[in-house]
Amino acid sequence: MTTNLPGSSTPDSHGAAVNQIPVAEANGFQLTFRHEAGIKILSTLVRASHDIEAWLRQHWLATPAPFYASVDLRNAGFKLAPVDTNLFPAGFNNLHRSSHPMCIQAIEHAIERVCPEAGKVLLIVESHSRNTFYFENVRVLLDLIERAGFEVAIGLLSEIDISADVSSPWQGWRHGVIQRHGDRVGLDDFDPCCIILNNDLSSGIPDQLLGIEQPVMPSPALGWRQRLKSRHFGFYRDIVDEFSQRFELDPWLLDARFRNCGQIDFQKRKGLDCLHHNAEQLFFDIRRKYEQYAIEREPFVVLKADAGTYGMAVMMIRDPDEVYHLNRRQRSRMSSGKGGLSVSQIILQEGVPTEELFGQQKYASESVIYMIDHTVVGGFYRCHSDKSAEESLNAPGAHFVPLPFSESCLNADPGALIENESNRLYVYGVVARLALLAAAHESRYHAGETA
Amino acid sequence: MTTNLPGSSTPDSHGAAVNQIPVAEANGFQLTFRHEAGIKILSTLVRASHDIEAWLRQHWLATPAPFYASVDLRNAGFKLAPVDTNLFPAGFNNLHRSSHPMCIQAIEHAIERVCPEAGKVLLIVESHSRNTFYFENVRVLLDLIERAGFEVAIGLLSEIDISADVSSPWQGWRHGVIQRHGDRVGLDDFDPCCIILNNDLSSGIPDQLLGIEQPVMPSPALGWRQRLKSRHFGFYRDIVDEFSQRFELDPWLLDARFRNCGQIDFQKRKGLDCLHHNAEQLFFDIRRKYEQYAIEREPFVVLKADAGTYGMAVMMIRDPDEVYHLNRRQRSRMSSGKGGLSVSQIILQEGVPTEELFGQQKYASESVIYMIDHTVVGGFYRCHSDKSAEESLNAPGAHFVPLPFSESCLNADPGALIENESNRLYVYGVVARLALLAAAHESRYHAGETA
Repeated sequence: MTTNLPGSSTPDSHGAAVNQIPVAEANGFQLTFRHEAGIKILSTLVRASHDIEAWLRQHWLATPAPFYASVDLRNAGFKLAPVDTNLFPAGFNNLHRSSHPMCIQAIEHAIERVCPEAGKVLLIVESHSRNTFYFENVRVLLDLIERAGFEVAIGLLSEIDISADVSSPWQGWRHGVIQRHGDRVGLDDFDPCCIILNNDLSSGIPDQLLGIEQPVMPSPALGWRQRLKSRHFGFYRDIVDEFSQRFELDPWLLDARFRNCGQIDFQKRKGLDCLHHNAEQLFFDIRRKYEQYAIEREPFVVLKADAGTYGMAVMMIRDPDEVYHLNRRQRSRMSSGKGGLSVSQIILQEGVPTEELFGQQKYASESVIYMIDHTVVGGFYRCHSDKSAEESLNAPGAHFVPLPFSESCLNADPGALIENESNRLYVYGVVARLALLAAAHESRYHAGETA
Repeated sequence: MTTNLPGSSTPDSHGAAVNQIPVAEANGFQLTFRHEAGIKILSTLVRASHDIEAWLRQHWLATPAPFYASVDLRNAGFKLAPVDTNLFPAGFNNLHRSSHPMCIQAIEHAIERVCPEAGKVLLIVESHSRNTFYFENVRVLLDLIERAGFEVAIGLLSEIDISADVSSPWQGWRHGVIQRHGDRVGLDDFDPCCIILNNDLSSGIPDQLLGIEQPVMPSPALGWRQRLKSRHFGFYRDIVDEFSQRFELDPWLLDARFRNCGQIDFQKRKGLDCLHHNAEQLFFDIRRKYEQYAIEREPFVVLKADAGTYGMAVMMIRDPDEVYHLNRRQRSRMSSGKGGLSVSQIILQEGVPTEELFGQQKYASESVIYMIDHTVVGGFYRCHSDKSAEESLNAPGAHFVPLPFSESCLNADPGALIENESNRLYVYGVVARLALLAAAHESRYHAGETA
């Protein structure tokens, strides 16, 4: 298939990719909240924007946000829900430059809270990436931290595996393999007051980071090995229930329903009955909701590894019986997450089709919202020319359209209770922050676990 | 004279005014840093931007910034200097909407610091204004505070004097005359956790605000009655000296020299010898600097009341002898500051001509930079069709062009060591923050005084 999107693309180590489309072209989007239920979401959240900000503020006091996050949102026109929350976000290179002042201000406040006096920050990055876009992401992060007034260095968990064509991705920046000195971690002659992780710790928490006295943000306990999607979406469900009660909205409109099964072995076909049963239940629930809102669509369900996999080990079914009839390729795909770990726990999530279609070709798109501390700082649309509105777009070949957030976000326009860019992005920022609040609860959960 | 600037204008209670010109038209500006000395300022500050941010951060730790401020900057092409620092800024209505997210984030952090738990804020505003633009400024502030997640009400120091055509400026907002209950101030059923002043206390600090337990921001000690320009610019001179030494710049390039005289009575022609002597000295100093930098201009000196007067009681001289030959109108003008108080202390300040000329008509302009907490949040160009490049532009008839800060500010572009919008605004943001730091020292000075 020929793509009409500009530029080429490659997935990076986080499945995030590449070529930015200028903001000016981003008006290739049509109205999305056309369904009655979508209009209800938009008008409710925009009208209550001041109360929502107060509500969120109270929650950040009780459960502080993790250092940063990106949230993938699917807007179906009749519902808007987060489908993935990444606590070690790459892709800062995909944000529009106009987002940088917001990023800098948020970084400053987040670091200041843990390092009121000192000014040295160590950014621990992925060591094994060969992806130039990931390097670019790191360089943007380093630059933002420096412009927030901090001295910054790059920490590697092991000697970097440098590919032939990327001779020195960290040239010009202080960098090295992290060293442990007593209860502190740093580099030669660089003793940071805090550590920021941009490495999702897929091999587990390294010994060097255990029991150190410096604060590490986000908590290593939120690394890929510990985190479960079912825990995140469980917290999210509770939060959306509370939020929906307060602001008089059906919680389903902001929540992709899920169920989970442990101990699935696709290769040996074990545990499939559990999957089938839960899929049946989920399809039943979705169909009832579709009837309630007169949505004329065929529901679908997404199967994902419960432990984060960034776009891998994801599968879509339209019928519960499909779980019994996976072909070899599908079984093998669902058995291998990032790093080749075998998948044993599976989450079934209500599929949310995207109504965001980019450009004349109407490419399927979803928005990715970036937050630092508890502030929405920017985002982009992820577009894919080869994927349908019901497929995961977090795949090789994705393209990125920066969101014009500086103009729009946080700027709900209650005077205009219709869909405009301002109001749409405000609503996205609210739902993304509800997912961030779920991550804050995860963080507290893990803190209790390790304390 | 006919003006080609769009819209009409009226000065507000702070001398700030009115009709915004769309950002799109703001590219009516030409390059300003054309002189060798100006290029030196630009390249030095842009190249050192990361170190400057770190330097500023260290200073905010030692001397926290006041709640907010606006700084008038004059860019002469060969020097860039603050000429007025307002700690109770009006004119938030003149900021571009794209500045709002930055404002909200900064407000949230500033209030959170003094009210970590509670969420009610009282904004004390001018009671006697009849200016609809001032009302609009207050409404923008209220909206920004609410959108930062706080409940907000308007406090008046006395019953508002409502003009016939402004029936209810605060309609839709909770408001009332402030009431003292023990050591706290609030309204009926509204007990704020902190108080923000947008009233410059020109009648002195009201009894109701003395000795209350709630934090008041900025400190009432920074009100118009207590503040002296000479103290502000004295602190500024020290700060610029330190800054210039650190970043290897001639401090004169960022500083309008000043001298001050006490006990001047223009009506009775007393104290004029002191003025004359200081004027001679100042002209001598400026001429020497003009020679050093080969600036082919006639120096001028501005006489201002040492106690803040927002554009009133300001006079320009080109020769020290002029102080002996003021006509009746000039003498009377210099004798009456805001509120009709007689002027007794005078500051003589090096005149900084503006090289910022707006549009085809080349209207004299200066930039006004807004800061909340220690963050540059936005600004605008103040243009005047009836004033020359050497006159004060803070006068009736001024027009306002919002600065495109969200795109540019904090975004120094060291790769392009030339003047572009980004770099120019970054440099403005640095110098404005040096003036803010001077205000922070004033605040500490007054805290020591009242403690």
